[in-house]
Amino acid sequence: MSDSGHCFSEDERQAVYRAIVERRDMRHFLPEPVDPVVLQRLLAAAHHGPSVGLMQPWRFLRITEPSLRQRIHAMVDEERCRTAEAMEARQQEFLRLKVEGILDCGELLVAALMDGREKHVFGRRTLPEMDLASVACAIQNLWLAARAEGLGLGWVSLFDPAALAQLLEMPEGAKPVAVLCLGHVNAFYPAPMLALEGWAAVRPLEELVYTNRWNNP
Amino acid sequence: MSDSGHCFSEDERQAVYRAIVERRDMRHFLPEPVDPVVLQRLLAAAHHGPSVGLMQPWRFLRITEPSLRQRIHAMVDEERCRTAEAMEARQQEFLRLKVEGILDCGELLVAALMDGREKHVFGRRTLPEMDLASVACAIQNLWLAARAEGLGLGWVSLFDPAALAQLLEMPEGAKPVAVLCLGHVNAFYPAPMLALEGWAAVRPLEELVYTNRWNNP
Repeated sequence: MSDSGHCFSEDERQAVYRAIVERRDMRHFLPEPVDPVVLQRLLAAAHHGPSVGLMQPWRFLRITEPSLRQRIHAMVDEERCRTAEAMEARQQEFLRLKVEGILDCGELLVAALMDGREKHVFGRRTLPEMDLASVACAIQNLWLAARAEGLGLGWVSLFDPAALAQLLEMPEGAKPVAVLCLGHVNAFYPAPMLALEGWAAVRPLEELVYTNRWNNP
Repeated sequence: MSDSGHCFSEDERQAVYRAIVERRDMRHFLPEPVDPVVLQRLLAAAHHGPSVGLMQPWRFLRITEPSLRQRIHAMVDEERCRTAEAMEARQQEFLRLKVEGILDCGELLVAALMDGREKHVFGRRTLPEMDLASVACAIQNLWLAARAEGLGLGWVSLFDPAALAQLLEMPEGAKPVAVLCLGHVNAFYPAPMLALEGWAAVRPLEELVYTNRWNNP
């Protein structure tokens, strides 16, 4: 398939697929803290993410003050209620779901887009949102590394970004895009929690792959 | 650290980090085709990505018609020139970079956001762009799996999304977000190509991690 110099062994290949397949968006955590050495490895994994024009637009905030964690939780709960109101038919069903583990997880992080992004034109002239795509790739690195470390992670996006930016004293132009709950877990869900809870079904891959033009199988 | 039921072995853990650290945004490819069985594994890895509210907003188009590949290449080259014009001081430096491998790679894919996303409110009422974050996570899965398979991938975002959507007959509301060059490579760059080329330096991680508030180390 390719020369041996850059090949992964069969076992290595399987390990990468294992992390991909067994990673879950976690909402249930055990309270033990995350080892700082492990946290450092996870943040380094994020920082190995790809970025458009190598702009490295990601910033990570560790939330260590309990009062700040409480305020972030309150902010997310407020948006949870507003989202429920916007849902009409599925409101009650949505309110029964556990959508975050902010008060339970061992480590709370906020991921944000840096300020001063407008000068980065490389790969962004027509698609300025590629900076968010880069941050998402960094988070996915962190997520998979966490799974390999036996730690769970949940990405929460139920918040008002302007209010959270103000709370964390972000400068004009910076924007929080993820509240990340990280920590030990009792068990990883055997399938995506929202599938287990009947919120949505995992779609067959073949419905999402086309050839040469849209909807062409 | 956690019970053995969900633990990765040390070797498995190292393999996941190896994929994360050795993944590169590739621009140089060998012409051999990608094994369809491997391609299927990579697309399945993407489809194991997390998505906001389990909306699974990703769509992948395989580009198998040579004429279509040529037209996509022309479209990207046009945007490359427009980006150079927008760059002022670094224009010549930018034009010397190899920014895509569309005509060289074994397999060309386009990743897109599906149409009909406005009804998905879960995690998106205040952050509608979370659908793009989900597609980016799916692509990062594919990217890491490709690395483990010994294949290179390059994410190209130098195109006019409306023009590419029209070329691929996308419905109103769908949007292409990545031209993905996938294929065999002679070697993976030892560091990000844009760092090797002197376009930008990799920043120290500690500059990008704060505690409790912005810029607080």
